[in-house]
Amino acid sequence: MIDYNGFFSRAAGEMQESAIRRMGTVLAQGKDIISFAPGYPAPETFPWAEFQAIAHDLLSGADGAVLQYGPTRGFRPLLEAIAAIMLRRDVRSSVSQLQITTGSQQGLDLIARVLLDPGDVVLVELPTYTGAITAFRNVQATIVGVPQHDDGIDLDALDATYVRLTREGRRVRLLYVVPNFQNPTGLLVSRHKRPQILEWAARRDVLVVEDDPYRELYFVDSAAEADVRPIKADDTEGRVVYLSSFSKTLAPGYRVAWIDAPPALIAKFEMAKQAEDLCTGSFDQRVVYEAVRRGILDRQLPRLRAHYQAKRDVMIAALEREFGRSMSWPAPRGGFFLWATLPAPMDGERLLACAVRHGVIYVAGEAFFVDGTGQGLIRLSFSAPTHEAIREGVARLAAAVREHAAEPAESSSAPARSAR
Amino acid sequence: MIDYNGFFSRAAGEMQESAIRRMGTVLAQGKDIISFAPGYPAPETFPWAEFQAIAHDLLSGADGAVLQYGPTRGFRPLLEAIAAIMLRRDVRSSVSQLQITTGSQQGLDLIARVLLDPGDVVLVELPTYTGAITAFRNVQATIVGVPQHDDGIDLDALDATYVRLTREGRRVRLLYVVPNFQNPTGLLVSRHKRPQILEWAARRDVLVVEDDPYRELYFVDSAAEADVRPIKADDTEGRVVYLSSFSKTLAPGYRVAWIDAPPALIAKFEMAKQAEDLCTGSFDQRVVYEAVRRGILDRQLPRLRAHYQAKRDVMIAALEREFGRSMSWPAPRGGFFLWATLPAPMDGERLLACAVRHGVIYVAGEAFFVDGTGQGLIRLSFSAPTHEAIREGVARLAAAVREHAAEPAESSSAPARSAR
Repeated sequence: MIDYNGFFSRAAGEMQESAIRRMGTVLAQGKDIISFAPGYPAPETFPWAEFQAIAHDLLSGADGAVLQYGPTRGFRPLLEAIAAIMLRRDVRSSVSQLQITTGSQQGLDLIARVLLDPGDVVLVELPTYTGAITAFRNVQATIVGVPQHDDGIDLDALDATYVRLTREGRRVRLLYVVPNFQNPTGLLVSRHKRPQILEWAARRDVLVVEDDPYRELYFVDSAAEADVRPIKADDTEGRVVYLSSFSKTLAPGYRVAWIDAPPALIAKFEMAKQAEDLCTGSFDQRVVYEAVRRGILDRQLPRLRAHYQAKRDVMIAALEREFGRSMSWPAPRGGFFLWATLPAPMDGERLLACAVRHGVIYVAGEAFFVDGTGQGLIRLSFSAPTHEAIREGVARLAAAVREHAAEPAESSSAPARSAR
Repeated sequence: MIDYNGFFSRAAGEMQESAIRRMGTVLAQGKDIISFAPGYPAPETFPWAEFQAIAHDLLSGADGAVLQYGPTRGFRPLLEAIAAIMLRRDVRSSVSQLQITTGSQQGLDLIARVLLDPGDVVLVELPTYTGAITAFRNVQATIVGVPQHDDGIDLDALDATYVRLTREGRRVRLLYVVPNFQNPTGLLVSRHKRPQILEWAARRDVLVVEDDPYRELYFVDSAAEADVRPIKADDTEGRVVYLSSFSKTLAPGYRVAWIDAPPALIAKFEMAKQAEDLCTGSFDQRVVYEAVRRGILDRQLPRLRAHYQAKRDVMIAALEREFGRSMSWPAPRGGFFLWATLPAPMDGERLLACAVRHGVIYVAGEAFFVDGTGQGLIRLSFSAPTHEAIREGVARLAAAVREHAAEPAESSSAPARSAR
């Protein structure tokens, strides 16, 4: 047989399996496992009957384009609908500023390919979304983390990092931020910090990548529309590349998301996408368009906010009951994630084997830290499981933590840690 | 405003719009234009009623996974169904050798990212598929063309090219071939040449990328199952990376294709795909799986063969009527394309403006040649237009050719030629 190692590109040599998707492998083993791992929306919230009606209408055969190849930029009526959605987010947009992507992950990948050369630096929050880390890493960029506070990235640390890297001769190209209910922390960047981030980027001539999949899922007891106003809303000079998606508000099984960026960048994203998958699925785009046009999306949003807020409440109540004061977390004001600090000195990655035995999984914090830290943290997704499963899963987690705490240190088998 | 030129990656700096997709822009202008340009399947062949029934069943809500994120590798039952399809193509496959992709274009892109570094050489047929050219170019590979005869690539020229490049210190990594009804020529690689290609690749330690989207669409008057047997069928050492798709046999609006390759490569393609779009659309994969499981795909194939064969006949009859012996082409034995040589010394790219005025478009041959030749050739897709449109389109093309031939040479406005 051939030794393929000699054939791999440098990028491929460094590629790693994502920690989150690895959890999917555990799940696929079919055991009775409650998963707090992947950030999946709850399928019981999907508007099934409405999707059934839309599919019936679209698949009548009256319009052949429904199942044909489509323009790389996207289905024009959907682009126009997204421009209207952007306007409601206080961002003046137009079709020339929009590119439909096959999920926001593709958006991140297009950004990486169009805006980064090997060795270029992307600044990210500590911690940050693993999918962004992977997309940037796959073009061999250097990813440097900047600490964040509860109200967002530490601006002094951000500038100090920039200055240090620039002095070392590095090109700092992008700042990647998830201002609304960040994956993994659930944190919300404060209103007053948003324009400061933009001002910093203008001063240092860095582009901002604003990844915003969760913004519609604010919890009305602690956040409002004004809290999730995009950084992009104040972007007068075209410095922000904004990403959002229908995966969390309609369904991720349709792979439809978008990039809003200056036309000169969009033109390049479109060319990169041509080579990457020609076009996002025509049927998926039509379904999403119909869901917007028929008002289904608008009807979904308040329901989803209530749905996930209730699940957050169930999870917090269960955690307080099971752990008392031995675990802590910032209370999520929206989104899918609760970011928990384990009782010290416990390590989330080491705890995982024990948790699997107890029938519960999560994502260990390390995966989200580009600086190798995060050992004492875990990400718990409350979005997909039922209330009952959340309670049971937290009870299992508590049992695992108790057992793991009682294990002699030398026997707590450390699984091979990923090199990230 | 910002000058974005300073922000583009080297890859982005070289990205170009595809000539084929550019034709889509012409079409979108909504004039009365008959298009022989893109290789679109005929929507009237799509099994609309069956798709409607499948969508209805899938969207009942009984299985939330239908609209959820799915495994990056693909929907397991579909992977198993594809392994069975591969077996019928004389290729022993298994789930460990398969990766679902968001169309075959993504397959090409994953291959490029995993197997090519900047400057690495890919050998391709002259002419070859533009989407492959773009995918390889986007990782800054060097693409070198090798002449082909009516029965496939010129093996002597192939080896001479390899030797020359190797002497120059270049790394030749891949040979990209489309053995069945090639895009753009419609040519079929002969049975006896297929194992010779594989032997050559083994001798020179080059991997073969076998792109096979059209193989099911052989025309029974001039080709048979045995003629389209994959090169991969004789691949005992894992040298062939094989691509195929449901886009031409079910519908391209569902973006579902696959790679069949040795497990060590598949593992890397999977990691690259994680970063590129997480997973191919769950709904699309389920629809395709159901179409296979319910026997819809099998029922489609003979219909499609007859459908496209009849369209080829209509196009050839119209070309013979309109052009007599002033145009020539190899008779397509399958697929979507007729590859025509214009009356000398006419240039397909220069003719285009005149053709658009006459209400017909095609793709000028140059786009398919990595060596800058192909000026006297055009690709005519007979797959999508109706019989009547084919006849009318060929008549318009003939009128354009006559008019263009009569134009004084200096006034034949040459559009800016792409640099490829």
